[in-house]
Amino acid sequence: MVDMNKVLSLHEKNIGVLKIDGTFDVNNRNDLAEAYTPGVADLAKRIEKNPDLKDRYTISGKLVAIISDGSAVLGLGNVGPAASLPIIEGKALLYKNFADVNAIPLALEQKSVDDIVKTIKTMAPSFAGIHLEDIAAPRVFEIEDRLSKELDLPIYHDDQTGTAIVVLAGLINAAKVVNKPLKDLKVVINGIGASGVATAKILIASGIKNITLVDIEGVVRDDNQNYNAYQRSLALDVNQTDGQSLDDVIDNQDVFIGLSDANVLNKQQVARMNTNPIIFALANPVPEINPAEALAAGAKVVATGSSQWPNQVNNILVFPGLFKGILASGLKHVDLQLQIDVATALAAMIPTPTTDKIVPGVFDDSVVKNVSQAVLNYAKK
Amino acid sequence: MVDMNKVLSLHEKNIGVLKIDGTFDVNNRNDLAEAYTPGVADLAKRIEKNPDLKDRYTISGKLVAIISDGSAVLGLGNVGPAASLPIIEGKALLYKNFADVNAIPLALEQKSVDDIVKTIKTMAPSFAGIHLEDIAAPRVFEIEDRLSKELDLPIYHDDQTGTAIVVLAGLINAAKVVNKPLKDLKVVINGIGASGVATAKILIASGIKNITLVDIEGVVRDDNQNYNAYQRSLALDVNQTDGQSLDDVIDNQDVFIGLSDANVLNKQQVARMNTNPIIFALANPVPEINPAEALAAGAKVVATGSSQWPNQVNNILVFPGLFKGILASGLKHVDLQLQIDVATALAAMIPTPTTDKIVPGVFDDSVVKNVSQAVLNYAKK
Repeated sequence: MVDMNKVLSLHEKNIGVLKIDGTFDVNNRNDLAEAYTPGVADLAKRIEKNPDLKDRYTISGKLVAIISDGSAVLGLGNVGPAASLPIIEGKALLYKNFADVNAIPLALEQKSVDDIVKTIKTMAPSFAGIHLEDIAAPRVFEIEDRLSKELDLPIYHDDQTGTAIVVLAGLINAAKVVNKPLKDLKVVINGIGASGVATAKILIASGIKNITLVDIEGVVRDDNQNYNAYQRSLALDVNQTDGQSLDDVIDNQDVFIGLSDANVLNKQQVARMNTNPIIFALANPVPEINPAEALAAGAKVVATGSSQWPNQVNNILVFPGLFKGILASGLKHVDLQLQIDVATALAAMIPTPTTDKIVPGVFDDSVVKNVSQAVLNYAKK
Repeated sequence: MVDMNKVLSLHEKNIGVLKIDGTFDVNNRNDLAEAYTPGVADLAKRIEKNPDLKDRYTISGKLVAIISDGSAVLGLGNVGPAASLPIIEGKALLYKNFADVNAIPLALEQKSVDDIVKTIKTMAPSFAGIHLEDIAAPRVFEIEDRLSKELDLPIYHDDQTGTAIVVLAGLINAAKVVNKPLKDLKVVINGIGASGVATAKILIASGIKNITLVDIEGVVRDDNQNYNAYQRSLALDVNQTDGQSLDDVIDNQDVFIGLSDANVLNKQQVARMNTNPIIFALANPVPEINPAEALAAGAKVVATGSSQWPNQVNNILVFPGLFKGILASGLKHVDLQLQIDVATALAAMIPTPTTDKIVPGVFDDSVVKNVSQAVLNYAKK
């Protein structure tokens, strides 16, 4: 258990876990002339002629904006923009700590999709990349789509892309543990919010044919108007079986991927899956099933979002190295093949996967190196 | 002269003069739990209940946004948002270097007043103060007015308020040098852009009665439709003499304050002023008159914006200490009395002003201390 008094005093002592620093000390008139006027006047004139030079000479060329409106914070729901700040600020600290990437937290008031897109586009000259965080679906799908089309900047939604990449990395290795070919796995994804949609997309793009998507309105079908257009469009590439709930579709699945709620999967359901079932119970802080129960019911590999059990599926494995590689390579889009390449690189870090070890640990120093290298390799192609 | 090769390599080496740092190292699972999850989840819940707590526990409580659209860069004009970045980034470095204030440069696309106001309001939860920089008048007047009314944050426009405060500080001491009471000075301000408007306001508020405002459309009068509403409203508090140009109104002035263009004041005009004229020739990089010429024509005190002559009127004397005091005191508005108090504190740093010393030097360590203390004293009142 984390000691909340320590947490509060840590965050209060410095008013947050981030600060702005100079890369240069200004001690005399000559320093001032070089760091500020009149030196920057000439620099401004050069950038006026060629705006791309801003990325070479100013922090905008290496700065990631972590943007949230606090409308869908993992495990907490719609807490509002102010309350999203400790989370996105913590993420900025992790960028710096793990990958020496400069990131700044920006909490936005909750506005229409159009207003959020306009706001981000208006401040875009200041940044080299946009990391969207904890914005509710389906608004975030539209925000991400529009920004990707309308801005010449890499747009990354951590809840979607980060989760999808780590799930695929874990699944590649879990398939080896149970000795089943990845593409032949029969997969049910329970919970088709932002992370569920992105996970479905990456699994489809990886060639997995037998996927069922289910949420509280039943199996996702293209004719089920209770689901939004983003969810329904996925249905065309997966099984559109009948089914009102997870319980209707759990029989004979090889893999359960839960991106839903605490305790929605029970032992009896695990027992109805195929032999050696793979369980990714990723709800936070309480998983869809307790790992001990899942194992007792016959599960062969269990992953969760928490560090208290083996196989922690955590986006920290992705975003620091991913943006390190993006900034170094100048890539402008985080497309599906890039996501698959990063997942493959993460999986390859575990040469002999076991029940208890399908993904590298969060503090494995080589994670950032391998992830960023995978991005650089992709950019060269 | 500044060596541009050194300037370019300095700004290129680190991709800008700023970086983001942590205030805390994350080395193990316990650090992670305290700096990020699950520690921040509890913090988020507390802030959800009381959003003001964000200022106590996150960088938003100590972070100033330096915002420009690059539409009116001193000496360069409308260079666009990208080209404003080295300037506002340099200013962020000065905030850190001189006053340990965290500031982040944000270049915004050039949009309507309404869109700029909306953008800044949308991202307001992220900041403790807004520093507007190099945005063209009259748009910036409306932007500043609306933000001051619609946001519960201190809004500071450096080109206006910073300049006005240093000019008043210098003028308080120049008046002592020539042994004339401040309030009796006959002042002409040439150039009624953003800085001219703000300077007029602070001088009026300081009790100076005999002020004339002149720009390229002649003397500013409330019935001269060539001037905008902000400029015309000032006319009601100053002399509305007839006059088509500076030359028509320079006779018998005690003070010339130029916030205009290079070489627009000549020796003959200085000679037509009252005895012991005070000349603030603040155009940059080339002043309204060369100080040597002004002195030869009888000027008693000459100030410029440049460090190559005595009496440098530079906003660096104001903004670092001002925001240090604002952040420490929690003040939400930079009103005229606060501006006058800061100017008075700056002036008081020179107990015996002389022709060559009416304001402290930029590298005088006690400037930030005195300015921020003046803000704290004002906040206590």
